[in-house]
Amino acid sequence: MPAPTPSALDELVASLPEGVVITDPVRTDKYRFDRAADPDAGTPAAVVRAESTGQVQTALRWASEHRVAVVPRGAGTGLSGGSTAVSGGIVLSTERMRDIRVDRPGRVAVVQPGLLNAEVKQAVAECGLWYPPDPSSFEICSIGGNIATNAGGLCCVKYGVTTDYVLALEVVLPDGRALRLGGARLKDCAGLSLTKLFVGSEGTLGIVTEATLRLMPPQSPPRTVVAGFADTRAATGAVVAITAGLRPSMLEYLDRTTVNAVEDHLRMGLDRSAAALLVAQTDAEGSTADRELAAIVEACQRHGATEVLATDDPAEGEAFTVARRQAIPALEKKGKLLLEDVGVGVAALPALVAGIEQIAAAREVTIALIAHAGDGNTHPLIVFDPADSEATARAGLAFGEVMDLAIALDGTITGEHGVGRLKQPWLATQLGEDVIDLSRRIKAAIDPLGIMNPGAVL
Amino acid sequence: MPAPTPSALDELVASLPEGVVITDPVRTDKYRFDRAADPDAGTPAAVVRAESTGQVQTALRWASEHRVAVVPRGAGTGLSGGSTAVSGGIVLSTERMRDIRVDRPGRVAVVQPGLLNAEVKQAVAECGLWYPPDPSSFEICSIGGNIATNAGGLCCVKYGVTTDYVLALEVVLPDGRALRLGGARLKDCAGLSLTKLFVGSEGTLGIVTEATLRLMPPQSPPRTVVAGFADTRAATGAVVAITAGLRPSMLEYLDRTTVNAVEDHLRMGLDRSAAALLVAQTDAEGSTADRELAAIVEACQRHGATEVLATDDPAEGEAFTVARRQAIPALEKKGKLLLEDVGVGVAALPALVAGIEQIAAAREVTIALIAHAGDGNTHPLIVFDPADSEATARAGLAFGEVMDLAIALDGTITGEHGVGRLKQPWLATQLGEDVIDLSRRIKAAIDPLGIMNPGAVL
Ligand SMILES: Cc1cc2nc3c(=O)[nH]c(=O)nc-3n(C[C@H](O)[C@H](O)[C@H](O)COP(=O)(O)OP(=O)(O)OC[C@H]3O[C@@H](n4cnc5c(N)ncnc54)[C@H](O)[C@@H]3O)c2cc1C
Ligand SMILES: Cc1cc2nc3c(=O)[nH]c(=O)nc-3n(C[C@H](O)[C@H](O)[C@H](O)COP(=O)(O)OP(=O)(O)OC[C@H]3O[C@@H](n4cnc5c(N)ncnc54)[C@H](O)[C@@H]3O)c2cc1C
Repeated sequence: MPAPTPSALDELVASLPEGVVITDPVRTDKYRFDRAADPDAGTPAAVVRAESTGQVQTALRWASEHRVAVVPRGAGTGLSGGSTAVSGGIVLSTERMRDIRVDRPGRVAVVQPGLLNAEVKQAVAECGLWYPPDPSSFEICSIGGNIATNAGGLCCVKYGVTTDYVLALEVVLPDGRALRLGGARLKDCAGLSLTKLFVGSEGTLGIVTEATLRLMPPQSPPRTVVAGFADTRAATGAVVAITAGLRPSMLEYLDRTTVNAVEDHLRMGLDRSAAALLVAQTDAEGSTADRELAAIVEACQRHGATEVLATDDPAEGEAFTVARRQAIPALEKKGKLLLEDVGVGVAALPALVAGIEQIAAAREVTIALIAHAGDGNTHPLIVFDPADSEATARAGLAFGEVMDLAIALDGTITGEHGVGRLKQPWLATQLGEDVIDLSRRIKAAIDPLGIMNPGAVL
Repeated sequence: MPAPTPSALDELVASLPEGVVITDPVRTDKYRFDRAADPDAGTPAAVVRAESTGQVQTALRWASEHRVAVVPRGAGTGLSGGSTAVSGGIVLSTERMRDIRVDRPGRVAVVQPGLLNAEVKQAVAECGLWYPPDPSSFEICSIGGNIATNAGGLCCVKYGVTTDYVLALEVVLPDGRALRLGGARLKDCAGLSLTKLFVGSEGTLGIVTEATLRLMPPQSPPRTVVAGFADTRAATGAVVAITAGLRPSMLEYLDRTTVNAVEDHLRMGLDRSAAALLVAQTDAEGSTADRELAAIVEACQRHGATEVLATDDPAEGEAFTVARRQAIPALEKKGKLLLEDVGVGVAALPALVAGIEQIAAAREVTIALIAHAGDGNTHPLIVFDPADSEATARAGLAFGEVMDLAIALDGTITGEHGVGRLKQPWLATQLGEDVIDLSRRIKAAIDPLGIMNPGAVL
């Protein structure tokens, strides 16, 4: 897609209030990358920091008229290059759209996309309510980005992912029209499920400018089990056993490389010698909690856990959750990362983890493994030295092989991070040409000029 | 759409095994209507009772080639005319596609569309698992119909609706291609959410030929509260109070007309004098169940319930659930029904119910009201004598006014039954022209010839 002419760019600047459009390359530079830090990121012609739906409409109308690529951007914490800038395109940042209104009796929150997930959680908690989806990045990622990627997190093993909480959306289509999809009601089957189609569409169909989120009564204080295992197969076996019979509110996995990186980072006394650590929680109450806790402990022991700690202290439990959330930042200190997000049915988790270990051994690369284990969603993080070209090449090969393995196990190349630009080359292998063709036809029906996030997903 | 020529019809018959295609009008007659019993139902040129995905493909390839309308049909229990036959079209019945395979460790069931919901529940229960969605019609409706309408039910106030349990689909597109969407994994954000787009699409995009359903550990035996109220506003007030703080596993509403019809039908000793009855359940365990039960009882009493019964006996609870499920059949004995399915945010339930009572009074029609009250989804059933043309006209006016009221309360014309043909004229009022336009563009991208269920939804 060609870059806009200088006069077209002037027109965009003039059509929006002072300060909304920035074109100075020094200031636009930080909008080039998301957390995947793609070295091939383009240089945008402008960044539009819209303050309202109307301004988003103005920008998109302009982009359609001039056939300029639009890369939507929330907080830029994405891990698959979904908001990597495109040369000559514009970045449409939602960072200034930060309103929220909580409807307590209606148990919904109406939010603008630029609010951080943590800010949404905080605002609804002040009204005695709970917004469950909790990506590890919840303190730094936007709710709009969560919706665009259908973000998951730690509690979604019990409470589901972002799409399960989105009742309605306002979206701006590429031609600048603003549409309301769905509504603030729990059940609705009037017409095609367009709300659900936009969730997880990674900015390829339009811009989410407002969302109505379903809220829940607060979660009970969780009780936590931490179990160390001498080998990873024992740990994944315990995961399968736990999920077969009950619904923990969290079930996370950290391998030895990760535990050591986190320990270097936080120094909290984790067992550096364990091959894998499971962190499980139940938020059930009373006797149910006792039963679930006992069942989790028993499953870990039966699968040969070397150490099992159970605690009722929410603060202690939170410390382990923080350790889990710090895994990616801790590993980022160890080298450059290639971040995977492969998922399988839980029963195939042991095979996936074992296969990843084989790939690491065969390619002589370090693959740290963290996982939202309870729903079969793993993050193999390939850690390498970018100065070593040979190691970089091997890391690249392993990156593809891990996705091929997931596909072979009837899994997915991405459970929650999205396809973005990084995993786009593998999408057709997973979905098949007919599904890609159908997706392209739908994309073309909504974005006939192909200006929305070109190069991402499809 | 023109009817197929006799030679085209011969071609269809010859391309499928003996007995799959029926054209004898005496035998095809029962495929003309669903439970909405539209008097204007068309007469199909043929009914294809496909036994496999391959046969569905054959039929759809033929229909595309000859531009023949295709009306997909499960068990024909739909309440909005979604499977009403179209003259000159074919009916594609899934009644013979009845395979099921339960993957116990994977906690999924792979089902063909023609199985009844109750048969799916039964087969997975035999493996110690649970498929939650439970439309009142679960013993007579097909799982494919449930998926096509995104069916709800009684437990979905806590456990969600059909779309929340569909992990993957096999669909046959109008051109005869069979596609696999999604997979047997809990989290997946690879590409557009096509699985979710097909759920609830009411046969307008293609035929669902297989589904992979997420299963849960079994539900604990429920505890039940039945509360009678002297006026309906008190009852709806109690509903709002209950849902504000906890998550019952069932919260149903029956008004006096319904209670009396059910009592005539079942003679189980319901209080005929109550203006409204609430039937609530909790499936929590131990002390949590105690707390929830007490909270439900307290909310009912605080809102002026005249009688409150609480029971731990699952059999007694089931008797009230059966009463609720029999409401539509019981009312069908009282006259012809116009079945509504309007929904609002729970906080607006009192206004919706009061408004419906006003419409009934103003139009001098009987409107029986049952509701999945906990999620704001009501079924006002307009009961009238079809021999009385004046009453029929007033019923028709009330039918539209109830939908207008729901839309005015920011609600939906259909929470779970679908738009079908009956509610199609109101869809644009709810969604707006831009959303209809977008839906049409998506429909055209998938079904360019417009052969799939023409006249339904869009
Ligand atoms: C340390 C760390 C831990 C993480 N843990 C998790 C985790 O547990 N679970 C998880 O799911 N993710 C996780 N992530 C990934 C990331 O935080 C999520 O993908 C998040 O949803 C992205 O939000 P964002 O606001 O940063 O979006 P961005 O990175 O800005 O954008 C992400 C995608 O969404 C599109 N987009 C953004 N806003 C809009 C909008 N308003 N309208 C349309 N499209 C839009 C972009 O074009 C892009 O394709 C983690 C990331 C980090 C750095
Ligand atoms: C007494 C009674 C109580 C009811 N209670 C409820 C309730 O509590 N909740 C609820 O949601 N519904 C309820 N219903 C409505 C009805 O049972 C549901 O809509 C059900 O999902 C329809 O299933 P079916 O197999 O009968 O579908 P059908 O009536 O045959 O078809 C329904 C729609 O789905 C399409 N369709 C069917 N199969 C396929 C397929 N394989 N592929 C593509 N499209 C297909 C049809 O074209 C049509 O548009 C009730 C109905 C009755 C009679």
